[in-house]
Amino acid sequence: MPPSVFVTPSHQFPFGSILSIGRRMELLEYARNTGCYIIEDDYDSEFRYAGMPVHALRELDAERVIYIGTFSKNLFPALRIGYMVLPQDLVAPIEGIKRLMDMHTPTLDQAILARFIADQHLQRHVTRMKRVYSRRRKLLIRSLSETFGNRILVSGDAAGLHLIAEFSGHIFDEERVQALAEGGVRVYPAEKYAIVKGRFEDRLIMGFGDVAEPQIPEGVRRIAEVLRELGEQ
Amino acid sequence: MPPSVFVTPSHQFPFGSILSIGRRMELLEYARNTGCYIIEDDYDSEFRYAGMPVHALRELDAERVIYIGTFSKNLFPALRIGYMVLPQDLVAPIEGIKRLMDMHTPTLDQAILARFIADQHLQRHVTRMKRVYSRRRKLLIRSLSETFGNRILVSGDAAGLHLIAEFSGHIFDEERVQALAEGGVRVYPAEKYAIVKGRFEDRLIMGFGDVAEPQIPEGVRRIAEVLRELGEQ
Repeated sequence: MPPSVFVTPSHQFPFGSILSIGRRMELLEYARNTGCYIIEDDYDSEFRYAGMPVHALRELDAERVIYIGTFSKNLFPALRIGYMVLPQDLVAPIEGIKRLMDMHTPTLDQAILARFIADQHLQRHVTRMKRVYSRRRKLLIRSLSETFGNRILVSGDAAGLHLIAEFSGHIFDEERVQALAEGGVRVYPAEKYAIVKGRFEDRLIMGFGDVAEPQIPEGVRRIAEVLRELGEQ
Repeated sequence: MPPSVFVTPSHQFPFGSILSIGRRMELLEYARNTGCYIIEDDYDSEFRYAGMPVHALRELDAERVIYIGTFSKNLFPALRIGYMVLPQDLVAPIEGIKRLMDMHTPTLDQAILARFIADQHLQRHVTRMKRVYSRRRKLLIRSLSETFGNRILVSGDAAGLHLIAEFSGHIFDEERVQALAEGGVRVYPAEKYAIVKGRFEDRLIMGFGDVAEPQIPEGVRRIAEVLRELGEQ
């Protein structure tokens, strides 16, 4: 049995699936039976647009779950601040490991962030950004639907800052990625992130976190145009 | 032969020795003959109080030396910013490694630091702190000399923020470190940092970087007092 299991239950990368409550309970049961820890990487759970709210694994079992959060998604990646919520037993050993890895922490940045949180700015920022991302997400889904109709299937879009678009009948290999880049649009094939290769060649990971609204329909238009030029649409 | 040799030629920790120009040339010759790289960690070379100025290994051979610098000593450790100056051949591979280790960098902190340097603040700060540290260093050496006379030998004090005090006839084992702590002074035995044990039990590492001036003679006085109580002086 493994000493730990690493999961992203609130939003798996890249496919965006959300671990169901039933599977969560099974996973925790497994952890309790085998004595292993679950590492729960909850990297973008603030941005949830659809479906039932889910409980973090950590809320269901505080003693078997190591919860990892980050400010990379809800603030900005260059802040380089994340955090762990640990079972009581692990606090001392992990403090020791942290000290071995890096004796100091960026206390100035952390103090500024603490003030930012205490003064409610983080909460307001997340609320505002959730509206912004929600608008971009809807616009991307609408653009895809208007351009490709039912030849396209969107999934993994209930949370986070990206979705998966499945283009039935197309594949995104290096040649096509290159052609799209020349057409002015950079795409991220889901296949690149798959452990088992060959099953997801028709899917793109489409991020909408840092794309301005006017760029969204324009990008979708260009994808369609390049695919047409390749004689594939 | 090793793929790399890690050295701190401007100020070895803990003993504070400085690598002579002759040994520097030998080390570079070895690197050229065997094709290995020298990693030069130049962590506190800004603070040099005595002796001839020395050239960084990097200045003597830019193609075989990986130079590492930090702002932990000349500014503050919680800034968490260091840098590497690389041989041309290593720039691309080390950029790749950096990306694997940590995709983002703290660009906000770096931008502020860049402005701080460009506006001459760093240079002025180092000049000012060199005067401050120089005063603390002199005060520590004078206090040791006034209190212990020639029973103490100071070394490794030409650079950096600490020196080595050798107390002839004393040893600093756990019991004595504990007694000193109870007497109100925390000491760092050099022995703790030695690879070969049993040779440096009579030496303390004495930092003067973050000690206010009035604390210096007071700390030395307390060491003397505790040693006297232990019947060792």
